[in-house]
Amino acid sequence: MINNFIYRNPTKILFGKGQIKHLSKEISTYGKKILLLYGGGSIKKNGLYDEIYSQLKDFEIFELGGVEPNPRVSTARKAIEIIRKNNIDFLLAAGGGSTVDCAKLISVGTYYDGDPWDIVKKKYFPEKALPFGDILTLAATGSEMNPGSVITNIETEEKIGWSSPLAYPKFSILDPVYTFTVPLSQTVNGIVDTMSHMIEQYFNAEHNPVMDGLIESSLKTVMKYAPLVLESPHNYDIRAVLMMSATIGLNYSLSWGTMGDWATHGIEHAVSAVYDIAHAEGLSIIMPNWLLYILPKDILRVKQFAINVMDVNPEEKSDEEIGKEGILKLQSYWKSLGAPTHLSEVGIDSTNIKKMAEIATDRPVLGSVYNLTKNDVINILKSSL
Amino acid sequence: MINNFIYRNPTKILFGKGQIKHLSKEISTYGKKILLLYGGGSIKKNGLYDEIYSQLKDFEIFELGGVEPNPRVSTARKAIEIIRKNNIDFLLAAGGGSTVDCAKLISVGTYYDGDPWDIVKKKYFPEKALPFGDILTLAATGSEMNPGSVITNIETEEKIGWSSPLAYPKFSILDPVYTFTVPLSQTVNGIVDTMSHMIEQYFNAEHNPVMDGLIESSLKTVMKYAPLVLESPHNYDIRAVLMMSATIGLNYSLSWGTMGDWATHGIEHAVSAVYDIAHAEGLSIIMPNWLLYILPKDILRVKQFAINVMDVNPEEKSDEEIGKEGILKLQSYWKSLGAPTHLSEVGIDSTNIKKMAEIATDRPVLGSVYNLTKNDVINILKSSL
Repeated sequence: MINNFIYRNPTKILFGKGQIKHLSKEISTYGKKILLLYGGGSIKKNGLYDEIYSQLKDFEIFELGGVEPNPRVSTARKAIEIIRKNNIDFLLAAGGGSTVDCAKLISVGTYYDGDPWDIVKKKYFPEKALPFGDILTLAATGSEMNPGSVITNIETEEKIGWSSPLAYPKFSILDPVYTFTVPLSQTVNGIVDTMSHMIEQYFNAEHNPVMDGLIESSLKTVMKYAPLVLESPHNYDIRAVLMMSATIGLNYSLSWGTMGDWATHGIEHAVSAVYDIAHAEGLSIIMPNWLLYILPKDILRVKQFAINVMDVNPEEKSDEEIGKEGILKLQSYWKSLGAPTHLSEVGIDSTNIKKMAEIATDRPVLGSVYNLTKNDVINILKSSL
Repeated sequence: MINNFIYRNPTKILFGKGQIKHLSKEISTYGKKILLLYGGGSIKKNGLYDEIYSQLKDFEIFELGGVEPNPRVSTARKAIEIIRKNNIDFLLAAGGGSTVDCAKLISVGTYYDGDPWDIVKKKYFPEKALPFGDILTLAATGSEMNPGSVITNIETEEKIGWSSPLAYPKFSILDPVYTFTVPLSQTVNGIVDTMSHMIEQYFNAEHNPVMDGLIESSLKTVMKYAPLVLESPHNYDIRAVLMMSATIGLNYSLSWGTMGDWATHGIEHAVSAVYDIAHAEGLSIIMPNWLLYILPKDILRVKQFAINVMDVNPEEKSDEEIGKEGILKLQSYWKSLGAPTHLSEVGIDSTNIKKMAEIATDRPVLGSVYNLTKNDVINILKSSL
């Protein structure tokens, strides 16, 4: 069934080798005073930091480094203070999805008198935003071409997704060369993240055949190229395929008129709010177990996924067997890349399962297609041990 | 190989049943005086004309009907006169791709003192545009989400494609219900148009695997649903699949970093500049013959198309045989929908072949991947008789 939808994505993508040459021109429409936001300093190691300064000689640059892998509201608060104090015109995020996510909250938080956490908690809806752009160094979250962001509050032990129509980057520079030096484990995290976004969107209630086809082909392309990057991390074309796929994976061109399930993301946010594991580690562990859990509820959809994405040969098998084989193939595929598939591999035991299930279900609905109760989450987490 | 590219598509898509309810709000940011542009009057028959007036009670509406199926520069001139005389704020196109194409030239021609034909001939590059939006009544050209347009000049016997970064619609209302009453022959034309856009983009030199996958799956979805619309022209979901596919077919999300060939379109424009046939009729006739002509030049690419799109079973066949089978399958598929596959079917004989070949090759390059000479075009047209 095809649902109504409204789609507009104003972000300008500058993709490819050397596209940083456009940086100064892209920013110049917005002003001369820039806040450069970055993470743990990998941009200093790979030369991007110096390149930014050399491109932006005519601008006045302020800086805030140290954005966390799970970006914190406290960092956004710090940045907003710098912006206000110095009348900054433009925010430039250089880094991975975390840095871009943090930039989004800074952007809309700048013109809000209250605490930016109110925006994350949907207590205040922004009406104005500081323009921002990014230079991406990691293929993963898709944040570079969408208005969504995930922010962590350490004090309240919450990790929450939010979005605003004002939070699209003005531009995103996607140069695959910046991803050459990303460690393999983080590269794999990015691949799992990309794939899980596509899978979340695939498990929708509408079954729009146009979107089905786009997602199936996108997943198959990622799965073909992912193992190659482990052999040749400096291969431009392979890195480019993965970077482009990550962007398409969550710029909502794969969900026209559909609403994905997103329960796995909900559960994972609860896990990584309690344990400091990488988002994608949680995803590769939970998603196959979530799929096994929903299999009896929607055998035909899982079967379609198994055949069209995981290339399961359906001959002489029941629908359930086909579905199960597809899920296990996904799990062993991720395992073959080196991603964890059990909570024990990342040091998590059963101690906090109930707590995590409570956090995950502390929202109106967990799983917009296959609604999960606290008990469901406990079962999924138990089967993930 | 992945090429560099810059992508930004600012058009807002409002897709689905009843989305016209947003019309007044979408226009209100731009002003109160509107020029309503439409074609041969089908919008009066299907109720859209009355619906527009009922939605826009608070606006002052001027009108220009009669936009031709191959929209003419003379019509754009007329519209620009009305706009200037009455200080129009916003242009609303209601109709198919022709009406939208015409609106684009009117939009950028409004602020140019010279003749709008200069813009089509790339003698003047617009710097300002009257904002415009559209309500689409035909799934075909993709004009509703791109900045391109094709305009005909009857005096000079020219039909030329042009584009401008300023020529994106501000919004496009895509309600599949408006396409229910499109006659089946025109519906088939729309399907051929959609598919040929995808095929033109598929035959590129870069072979970007992400784009390959997206195009292959998009083509397969269209080919699955096209025969169904002939049985059930009032089925919402089928019409919706075709409408959405037409938009995706040419909003350039299928050509990130690739440049399609577009020779078939070049040849077709020459044919329909001389003979008044529908654009899609020319395409369904020429494209398979063009494919057969380039087959020896790029056997592996045609082979990939044959296997991945046309489902040719490659076993025990040479690459050439596989490619040829795929092309002939495409041709008989179009024939099965009722589309013409020979020039004789639309009343064209060999008389003007040389003339058409001259018009088609009167440009720097015809076919950006497989460059064609005048002699090549003559051969392709001869094999299309």
